[in-house]
Amino acid sequence: MTAHETPSNRDAFARRHIGPDVAEQQRMLEAIGYSSVDELMDAAIPEAIRFTGDLDLPAAATEAQALAELRELAGANTVATSMIGLGYYGAHTPAVIGRNVLENPAWYTAYTPYQPEISQGRLEALLNFQTMVTDLTGLATANASMLDEGTASAEAMTLARRSSKSRSNIYVVDADTLPQTISVILTRAEPLGIDVQIRDLAAGLPDEFFGLHLQYPGASGAVRDHAALVEAAHGVGALVTVAADLLALTLLRAPGEIGADIAAGTTQRFGVPMGFGGPHAGYLAVRAGLERSLPGRLVGVSRDVEGAPAYRLALQTREQHIRRERATSNICTAQVLLAVMASMYAVYHGPEGLKEIARHAHDAATRLAAGLRAGGVELTAVAFFDTVTAVVPGRAEAVVAAAAERGVNLRLVDADHVSVACDETTTPEHLDAVFAAFGVAAPTGAVADALPQGLRRTSDFLTHPIFRTHHSETGMLRYLRRLADADYALDRGMIPLGSCTMKLNATTEMIPVTWPEFANMHPYAPADQTGGYERLVAQLETWLAEVTGYDAVSVQPNAGSQGELAGLLAIRGYHRDNGQAERDVCLIPSSAHGTNAASAVMAGMRVVVVACDDDGNVDMIDLDRKIAANRDALAAIMVTYPSTHGVYETGIAELCEKVHAAGGQVYVDGANLNALLGFAKPGRFGADVSHLNLHKTFCIPHGGGGPGVGPVAVRAHLARYLPGNPLHIAAGTSETNHAVSAAPLGSAGILPISWAYLRMMGPDGLSNATAVAVLAANYVAARLREHYPVLYSGNKGLVAHECILDLRTITKQTGVSVDDVAKRLIDYSFHAPTMSFPVAGTLMVEPTESEDLDELDRFCDAMIAIRGEIEAVAQGRWPAGDNPLANAPHTAAMATAEVWEHAYPRQVGVYPGGVVSQGKYWPPVRRIDGAYGDRNLVCSCPPPTAYED
Amino acid sequence: MTAHETPSNRDAFARRHIGPDVAEQQRMLEAIGYSSVDELMDAAIPEAIRFTGDLDLPAAATEAQALAELRELAGANTVATSMIGLGYYGAHTPAVIGRNVLENPAWYTAYTPYQPEISQGRLEALLNFQTMVTDLTGLATANASMLDEGTASAEAMTLARRSSKSRSNIYVVDADTLPQTISVILTRAEPLGIDVQIRDLAAGLPDEFFGLHLQYPGASGAVRDHAALVEAAHGVGALVTVAADLLALTLLRAPGEIGADIAAGTTQRFGVPMGFGGPHAGYLAVRAGLERSLPGRLVGVSRDVEGAPAYRLALQTREQHIRRERATSNICTAQVLLAVMASMYAVYHGPEGLKEIARHAHDAATRLAAGLRAGGVELTAVAFFDTVTAVVPGRAEAVVAAAAERGVNLRLVDADHVSVACDETTTPEHLDAVFAAFGVAAPTGAVADALPQGLRRTSDFLTHPIFRTHHSETGMLRYLRRLADADYALDRGMIPLGSCTMKLNATTEMIPVTWPEFANMHPYAPADQTGGYERLVAQLETWLAEVTGYDAVSVQPNAGSQGELAGLLAIRGYHRDNGQAERDVCLIPSSAHGTNAASAVMAGMRVVVVACDDDGNVDMIDLDRKIAANRDALAAIMVTYPSTHGVYETGIAELCEKVHAAGGQVYVDGANLNALLGFAKPGRFGADVSHLNLHKTFCIPHGGGGPGVGPVAVRAHLARYLPGNPLHIAAGTSETNHAVSAAPLGSAGILPISWAYLRMMGPDGLSNATAVAVLAANYVAARLREHYPVLYSGNKGLVAHECILDLRTITKQTGVSVDDVAKRLIDYSFHAPTMSFPVAGTLMVEPTESEDLDELDRFCDAMIAIRGEIEAVAQGRWPAGDNPLANAPHTAAMATAEVWEHAYPRQVGVYPGGVVSQGKYWPPVRRIDGAYGDRNLVCSCPPPTAYED
Repeated sequence: MTAHETPSNRDAFARRHIGPDVAEQQRMLEAIGYSSVDELMDAAIPEAIRFTGDLDLPAAATEAQALAELRELAGANTVATSMIGLGYYGAHTPAVIGRNVLENPAWYTAYTPYQPEISQGRLEALLNFQTMVTDLTGLATANASMLDEGTASAEAMTLARRSSKSRSNIYVVDADTLPQTISVILTRAEPLGIDVQIRDLAAGLPDEFFGLHLQYPGASGAVRDHAALVEAAHGVGALVTVAADLLALTLLRAPGEIGADIAAGTTQRFGVPMGFGGPHAGYLAVRAGLERSLPGRLVGVSRDVEGAPAYRLALQTREQHIRRERATSNICTAQVLLAVMASMYAVYHGPEGLKEIARHAHDAATRLAAGLRAGGVELTAVAFFDTVTAVVPGRAEAVVAAAAERGVNLRLVDADHVSVACDETTTPEHLDAVFAAFGVAAPTGAVADALPQGLRRTSDFLTHPIFRTHHSETGMLRYLRRLADADYALDRGMIPLGSCTMKLNATTEMIPVTWPEFANMHPYAPADQTGGYERLVAQLETWLAEVTGYDAVSVQPNAGSQGELAGLLAIRGYHRDNGQAERDVCLIPSSAHGTNAASAVMAGMRVVVVACDDDGNVDMIDLDRKIAANRDALAAIMVTYPSTHGVYETGIAELCEKVHAAGGQVYVDGANLNALLGFAKPGRFGADVSHLNLHKTFCIPHGGGGPGVGPVAVRAHLARYLPGNPLHIAAGTSETNHAVSAAPLGSAGILPISWAYLRMMGPDGLSNATAVAVLAANYVAARLREHYPVLYSGNKGLVAHECILDLRTITKQTGVSVDDVAKRLIDYSFHAPTMSFPVAGTLMVEPTESEDLDELDRFCDAMIAIRGEIEAVAQGRWPAGDNPLANAPHTAAMATAEVWEHAYPRQVGVYPGGVVSQGKYWPPVRRIDGAYGDRNLVCSCPPPTAYED
Repeated sequence: MTAHETPSNRDAFARRHIGPDVAEQQRMLEAIGYSSVDELMDAAIPEAIRFTGDLDLPAAATEAQALAELRELAGANTVATSMIGLGYYGAHTPAVIGRNVLENPAWYTAYTPYQPEISQGRLEALLNFQTMVTDLTGLATANASMLDEGTASAEAMTLARRSSKSRSNIYVVDADTLPQTISVILTRAEPLGIDVQIRDLAAGLPDEFFGLHLQYPGASGAVRDHAALVEAAHGVGALVTVAADLLALTLLRAPGEIGADIAAGTTQRFGVPMGFGGPHAGYLAVRAGLERSLPGRLVGVSRDVEGAPAYRLALQTREQHIRRERATSNICTAQVLLAVMASMYAVYHGPEGLKEIARHAHDAATRLAAGLRAGGVELTAVAFFDTVTAVVPGRAEAVVAAAAERGVNLRLVDADHVSVACDETTTPEHLDAVFAAFGVAAPTGAVADALPQGLRRTSDFLTHPIFRTHHSETGMLRYLRRLADADYALDRGMIPLGSCTMKLNATTEMIPVTWPEFANMHPYAPADQTGGYERLVAQLETWLAEVTGYDAVSVQPNAGSQGELAGLLAIRGYHRDNGQAERDVCLIPSSAHGTNAASAVMAGMRVVVVACDDDGNVDMIDLDRKIAANRDALAAIMVTYPSTHGVYETGIAELCEKVHAAGGQVYVDGANLNALLGFAKPGRFGADVSHLNLHKTFCIPHGGGGPGVGPVAVRAHLARYLPGNPLHIAAGTSETNHAVSAAPLGSAGILPISWAYLRMMGPDGLSNATAVAVLAANYVAARLREHYPVLYSGNKGLVAHECILDLRTITKQTGVSVDDVAKRLIDYSFHAPTMSFPVAGTLMVEPTESEDLDELDRFCDAMIAIRGEIEAVAQGRWPAGDNPLANAPHTAAMATAEVWEHAYPRQVGVYPGGVVSQGKYWPPVRRIDGAYGDRNLVCSCPPPTAYED
């Protein structure tokens, strides 16, 4: 043993993260005809882009070492009591929810519920979330969460734009709106040519405008009656968005009750830790008539083939992956894990409990106001909910400092104003500290409330029984278990989703997330309290830059979609500063993910599609043609590498050169970075910008459909265009840069996950993970090739980290569809591969490096067995309409029915691989009829009678 | 809001802990004819014992407050690097195991696997544990864990006593044995008249002795070849126990290979936190021929009615609850949760990984030895594994202090000797600190190993595939999930086990257990580092004394059985000090739990049984008779209150008086304390001593069959007889008191659970919990009385906190047994009530306060439906041999078989309450044939071929 040794084999985290051990890797290599992973990677990766050096990262730490270092970083944060407000509040996460959702792999390792039959648990939780939002806002339909309040508000603006009959280009924003919301709105308005007018609404409205954004209560804490403004806006054909605090809405009239068309906001204070800014679930709700214009994910009630109620994502035809450049939003995920937490908080407390919590915050604020007033301190508002703004001419900094000394952070509004926000966690001791900081005494005697008479809520909410049932911890625990048990996640088996990189989310990576020093930090806590986070983020950005070959990284974008937008806006800013504002064409290959096109449109660009050749590669001749046709207008090309076909295109370096030669910038979508780390760096082989998906390559769990994190990485010339934040000016960024996400560092609270991954893998571990991911994909391709054609391959017939199985001929010949195969895999206890992307009628398989050989073989065996089942249909042994594929998935209820009239035995239906006593996943519903639900849209909890026969 | 307010309703933890809310309680009261819980309790509890004051406890804290206070207590502990050794070592808990076992309610809320059909997951894990122990020790059979190394060694002594052919009364103990082990052996030997001789074995053996205890490696670290001693012992007919370190056995010859008959020890260092002494899983293994003499739980392989392999507890006829005063041990639990962790550590690392870990510790120790020797420090042994003892004449204290200053704790053996133990977590930096403390330099160059040539292990171990399969984190995660999914625990539904109090184990109570400041403390850490633990334990003991009415409490006993023994030994000591050593009769009612009698025998007492009358109460006439017959010899009476029949006996105060008048002491078994807290105090109504079950009334989870904690509480005159520890002399206890458990404060690591429960419930919450527990039992009794006779009741026909359903007549008339009903409840997704205790042919139901009305009604509905099914059998509608009761439980495999030839529909079998899509528990096996497994005893993992058809 020598000092500072690198971890021995036994300690090496990479050995736990990478599924196949060395002996298994050898067997896999033999199956594909290579002698070593090095030889395989030499063959697979084009020479032109190959990075042959060593990654300049610290050597791998063991899990224990990484946790010790994270504890040290955590210790460098100071957890004070936050009374800053501004959309982030102290909240008690009910322990039963924290541990059994946020810390439970059954919830956090689940994927987006695209396969609804195996996602009924989280779909029910999301339906509870939607019901909670619609009830509290008084609107008809809410989606299944947004990324944050800022982006939700920006989406509300564009929703208003496309729904308003007004021809005005003006969007009016209440000056008492959260500053980060204004910043995000400005970011999103500029490329679309929307004229944002920020106004003190007491001073009136312009004559014409298409939309109005109101904050309720205001950022200052003031509660105003917005009814007249709403009426005025409607009078000119404008739509009104009310950005409302859901907790306040338990006591205040709902936006829907004062005529709002849209409500937006955050659900953070419903038991979700502040996490230095995120992740939290934003929300968006609309009045009747606008539901089909809602962006984002929407859960709806439909039915399965037996007519039983069943949940699934509704109205998916609205979405960017279908509408591409005609999409109106690039949002392709939600904040499911956090939305589940917030919904469970409402389920656990129920309407009465929520009212008590709101009353607690309000009582504290009224007491605060009384003490301040009695001490001669003027307040800016008479009516408020939980926040008061005090007028302290010239004394604001001193007051804030005095409070900080007492362990309480207040909001320094300006030199003369201090805001103080109360919440669920506020205690008399906290108020005493505030009084002392202001130099006033605590009030004596009773204090009247400060809710305007006309704005008191009188309507009921959360009347569905689900909000009145699980109020004991035992009850909540069992409800969470029952829902989790309905779902299939990585903790049960493989999720071989091409382009989604569903690999291990290691426990050690997750552990720091719920430490108080990371969880309980306000994003605007003073810099002298946030040293741990700043160091962690700086290191993470440095490491991400190193592995991608870029010069600067911003972790602000809290989803890949926001990262795309941030990257394209950087390109836009660059061209404009170079006097080439006319460059607005974005080339996008026909194989690209639809989000790319949607993002380009949102960044004010025109999309020009570049064809792909028969091998799935960018057609270089068509590329030349499109460049020539748009030479002066060429802004950028967006490509994914390896391509969305799962192939290392050999022409990538040449492609970059061509675009650069024409004055364009190269955007490489980082979705497939899992095939590159350690072997190629986009920033070095010609790209100018990428977004990364930390929830793919860097192990942030998918959470059932969020949180994602989508940092943007750029070459040096684009660094000054990275996103900013009005209240948190990071070194090197311009004060004038606007935000793409509400929080300065996005979903900072989960960045320890990716930090830990990089720290524990080290340079060798990362390279090895890439190699094994490629090895696994080629192994699967080799085993399945004779059963299903593998659609594309590159060098020497190799795929990259995923492979496409082509079912089109099979479907044509037998009628068995990719859908049938996907649903049949459920009976085999698998999640389906990616369906019909990037090519309709195919399945794209990405095994990742984390699946061991047993599981890879179990999957291949299942696919081969299914091929045999298809053959039985083809040969007429089973009727086309009644076979295990057509009837999949099979429920236990179906298989135990008294009468069985199918053409195959029951156990062929439910135990296709042979009877097992343990580990069988039982789907709760049969195949779901999505179209029925879209025709009969129901997006909140159905009454209990709906479940009766 | 006023300062220091008591928690509002919304914040009150009691509201979450107690299942039925106020409205539900009202409905339940109406059903039994009372208007309030106060009225109910006034009626139920005998006036003579009623406590009417207020409990002197702090007012209830909220969950957040309690966690904050616990963080403060945790902060008062200093986590240093422990190199103390003595049976407690630093170990890395693999994060995936820590979070998904220790922090997962599916594992920790499970009950002892008495219902094996719903316990296959943890039974498999325990079988892995047994296989691990037998492989490593080289012996034939291991049990499913012991309480700790000390009690395992004491059990080994009594096992040797009853198995040895020697007539000697002498038990020889290696002087190089762990001091706490020696202490426990002395405690256990004295009442049995065993003459323990502690010897330096180099000085030879006595001529005659029945057993020999060897430590391997020794407490000093020395590794000695014991083969000659073993041979000599066998020569005089003695049995040999080797207390062996399992990690060392990966490199050293196994006890079985040198002829040992028994091996004992701990598995703590297999990934289980030190926890200031516990809980950890001890182990006990024996050579072929002794397996039927093993105490404790033993898992064996049997088969279900279809012949499929199935696990269950084997040879239960050995146990104390069956053999009562003929039992040879009172052990009635194990350390299942910790045994599962240790077994998973072995599964995760595999044999090669364990060897590497052992090698790491050994390499560190050899390096340490080389540095010390080179620096002129003499060592006591040439051969060692992980621990060296240095000779530092007069300098020992200074060396230990110097190391402590550097953050490392060493063992101060005496003024001239210091021991240093290395482990998995030892780093070069730790060694540098030790070198500095000794004033020597680190060695340079390679260092030879220190394992004697003749003692190197050459045999294989952990050769079963299970130890070579789940080495990736993904694989381990899924294995843990699969096993957990096979089991039924409180997170799925009610476990209405009479006398077991399966109530909520709240998340907030569990959270501190895995904080490093509680988890990573060595039990012999210096007092200036353990202030937090000392305060926590002192408060807990004070609170426990207050709620029970006693004057002193010791938390050392780490199971109820040890608490019983400690209490009886206190009585024994008291009589002896009073010159009444002849008092050795212990009166025990015929209804008592068998453990009481076993404990009395172990405490050197003779058991005299007192009859019960037809109502299940102690027969006062027989009591008088037995007192009279044993007046001069009367030591004690042991009674349970409320009685094991679940009734508040009205004569309890009188009973106490009678026994006291005859010079005896009163022992009240605290098993049923959940019916008393806040309403009666045993220490005030006449009892002298009780043990408490923190794993019942005080919310420590059952963990699938341990850990339990069984503090002993005494009146002042018995306080000086509480257990001690040779290395940790607590204030007020005598240095000469011997230990009942190895660690000074027993399972200190889980005491934060009970601390948090008491802190969060407060006096009112505790009383309310008691009242609702009694209400729930009476509600169940009222609903079921017309379907099943309720066997016993007390005042006004009320039961206490549980009720006995009498099936004897039903069984006689229909042939349907309690077993049939218990197994049928599985089909209804329930755990069975307690079967045939305290009365054969009955079911005892204890609903506890934590089940809400929905779940209570679901249970009553199921029992009523089952009564209907019994009726169908009685009426001949279903044949006696083929009905849902006889065939229960039904597996999915059975219900989906192609052919169904039963007299009832499939779905009547598997969905008796109607088809449900979620929440159905599927047992993995059908009814298990226990007798088959006892005839064909297999107690380690069967080969994979055993599972083939």
